[in-house]
Amino acid sequence: MKLELSRVVQGCRLGVLTGLGKSGQRSLEVPGCLLYTRCATVPHLTQDTLHTLRDLPSVTQVSVDSLAEHHEVLEEFKEGVRKFAGLHDTVLFCSLHDSANTSPTGHVTNKTVSVWGSGGRIELTVARFMAIQAAIQPDCYQSMADGETWQAGTSRKRVRKAVDRSLAHLDECLVLHQKTQELKQAEIFGVVEGGDILEERLRSARETAKRPVGGFVLDGFHSAAMDQDVRVQLIKVTSAELPQEKPRLVLGVGRPDEVISCVEAGVDLFESFFPFQVTERGCALSFNFTIDPDPETAGTSTPRVLEFNGEMPAVKKLNSNGDENAMPYEMNLKDKRYQDDFRPLVEGCSCYCCKKHMRAYVHHLLVTNELLGGVLLMLHNMAHYLGFFKALRDAIASDRLQDFKNRVLHCRVGD
Amino acid sequence: MKLELSRVVQGCRLGVLTGLGKSGQRSLEVPGCLLYTRCATVPHLTQDTLHTLRDLPSVTQVSVDSLAEHHEVLEEFKEGVRKFAGLHDTVLFCSLHDSANTSPTGHVTNKTVSVWGSGGRIELTVARFMAIQAAIQPDCYQSMADGETWQAGTSRKRVRKAVDRSLAHLDECLVLHQKTQELKQAEIFGVVEGGDILEERLRSARETAKRPVGGFVLDGFHSAAMDQDVRVQLIKVTSAELPQEKPRLVLGVGRPDEVISCVEAGVDLFESFFPFQVTERGCALSFNFTIDPDPETAGTSTPRVLEFNGEMPAVKKLNSNGDENAMPYEMNLKDKRYQDDFRPLVEGCSCYCCKKHMRAYVHHLLVTNELLGGVLLMLHNMAHYLGFFKALRDAIASDRLQDFKNRVLHCRVGD
Repeated sequence: MKLELSRVVQGCRLGVLTGLGKSGQRSLEVPGCLLYTRCATVPHLTQDTLHTLRDLPSVTQVSVDSLAEHHEVLEEFKEGVRKFAGLHDTVLFCSLHDSANTSPTGHVTNKTVSVWGSGGRIELTVARFMAIQAAIQPDCYQSMADGETWQAGTSRKRVRKAVDRSLAHLDECLVLHQKTQELKQAEIFGVVEGGDILEERLRSARETAKRPVGGFVLDGFHSAAMDQDVRVQLIKVTSAELPQEKPRLVLGVGRPDEVISCVEAGVDLFESFFPFQVTERGCALSFNFTIDPDPETAGTSTPRVLEFNGEMPAVKKLNSNGDENAMPYEMNLKDKRYQDDFRPLVEGCSCYCCKKHMRAYVHHLLVTNELLGGVLLMLHNMAHYLGFFKALRDAIASDRLQDFKNRVLHCRVGD
Repeated sequence: MKLELSRVVQGCRLGVLTGLGKSGQRSLEVPGCLLYTRCATVPHLTQDTLHTLRDLPSVTQVSVDSLAEHHEVLEEFKEGVRKFAGLHDTVLFCSLHDSANTSPTGHVTNKTVSVWGSGGRIELTVARFMAIQAAIQPDCYQSMADGETWQAGTSRKRVRKAVDRSLAHLDECLVLHQKTQELKQAEIFGVVEGGDILEERLRSARETAKRPVGGFVLDGFHSAAMDQDVRVQLIKVTSAELPQEKPRLVLGVGRPDEVISCVEAGVDLFESFFPFQVTERGCALSFNFTIDPDPETAGTSTPRVLEFNGEMPAVKKLNSNGDENAMPYEMNLKDKRYQDDFRPLVEGCSCYCCKKHMRAYVHHLLVTNELLGGVLLMLHNMAHYLGFFKALRDAIASDRLQDFKNRVLHCRVGD
């Protein structure tokens, strides 16, 4: 695996991650995202429905928490989770937790971390963690790590312990990795911890970078963990310690404004749990990311957001106060105003939902709790999110990042 | 609309219902089923996923209960529920209730019936019922009827009242139907009531048959309402009163053995809520309906059920005691025995789920509550159910109904 950078503009790294997959023939453009799954399936979607989407990421993310309790079955199956779940043609990245869920805290010890499956807590030693990886057979995976340092006010001592433990786990993982036939072609991503303590972040980054890892996972930066300014500063100094040619995946960051600020701080890869969360609250992503200034051509081939019927008060509130409940990037389709809105979710969007269905129908499905509501929203939201990343890459490539930021960060829907 | 019978064997009517749809060009083979929907969508499935199924019924069923509260929106939309829900190419049949739900009783008056939407009870006069039909714009619909006579021990007086009211509603519907531009090309199905009182069934059938209806709905025969023997006898005498060339749709009957006995009693059409109910309990239809006696060729192109790992105690129990909890036609994929079963649900089944996935994976999706579990099961169950109807028609056509019954009714899964 190698990250070939074609351009670095204002801290943003544009490039292609090559040499992925068993054959080494797959690649992934960065900045980009992994394909979010739970139990190796994109929620709501079959493989065929999913493949109606254009520009699907070539890397699919699975997580240990949803697979750990099926360890024995996977071991017996012998052919890995890709085949078990019918995902024949994708690169697999395995992380520890599902970022769409929050796990209980207080269950990390010197030698173990815990994950939560449907049957409750599962305690993992490095040996068990690696046995699970051998059964999953990912192409890359994050090493086991103590990520419990994200709560505000975690003591310096606790943060230092987390860094130490994560490095020790990494070393143990690397030893077992070498001995595991099933992981011969796989690569480990080292996990950078350090909470909000700059010194520990630096130490974690430097030490991790010394190990033979394929890339880096930046942990403990998720939306609830810290303010955006703090996150950006910490990531910047952390990134500076990491080798240029190895990819950096940040966990738990999904909102478009946060993604942009992370990319400017040197992050290459993101998860895509965000469109799933938007779907689960009955909302459709609807922010504008097109930067074509020509109204004659804009909106013909790229999504263009329609005017709202009512006012859209959320953006300013969120930008100034960080109000979590404000949702400037999405429209709540459960809202009554959409019950007789016969337009597509987003005009010009080429997703299955927008081509075939109206806001009024999706509203109707949602208020009556019909399962198709989630299917249609998930299709649209994933398409919109992937479109956002593509537009971000295009903006970096064409030196129009500022236009792009103006559009995304200050868009009032309907602009 | 016209039913062209090609064959009547042991009471079973084999034929084609022609002249369906706006153009009159669509047809439906009988015995057959309508495509079950809720809110005009097959639960769990997008239109594209649905159309991976072969031999889809050309008639889709919608129901007033899930659409009544969207009456105003549909009225404003003006183009009917087919277009509202993105169902461009199907014949629409509208019934009053969703047979997968049970509605509270005690809310029928002389002039009204009630349906329950997500927002609660909606009381319908004939005028409102017809206004809703005008907004839905079905190709055929059942008239408003008092169906509250199915509880055991309903008095003769109450049953008589239900028959009288349903005839009065039908007459009112017919008058308004003539005056409604949106329903100009639609046809009404008259509803035969009468509970378990033979005399009232006969009266209801005779009186309804005198009206200018396109077909008949046989109401009050659903699984919970009466014993199979009573149902069969009542339907037989009722059918004899109905004109041969008009179709008969029975409501609330879905289990394969009940379907077969209804077909022998003269029923042409069924709903398909049954595979949905099977899906909702985490089960896969797995009964054998192939009647090829040659083991060399059997199972190559038609579904063939694999052996169970454990014993299969349900069939005899159900057949002798009518135990509702025994499920001889399905396998409960939540059962632990499937966690390491790497075979398809049904060997040889050509549905999307069976071609791509294993029992162990579907089990895994179900126990972790993943939404794809329902999607995959719904696809398989609908495919299996449609295959059952096709095999039933083939058996009648080739004079092998007894072989077919032996196979379906006495099949021990794994035979």
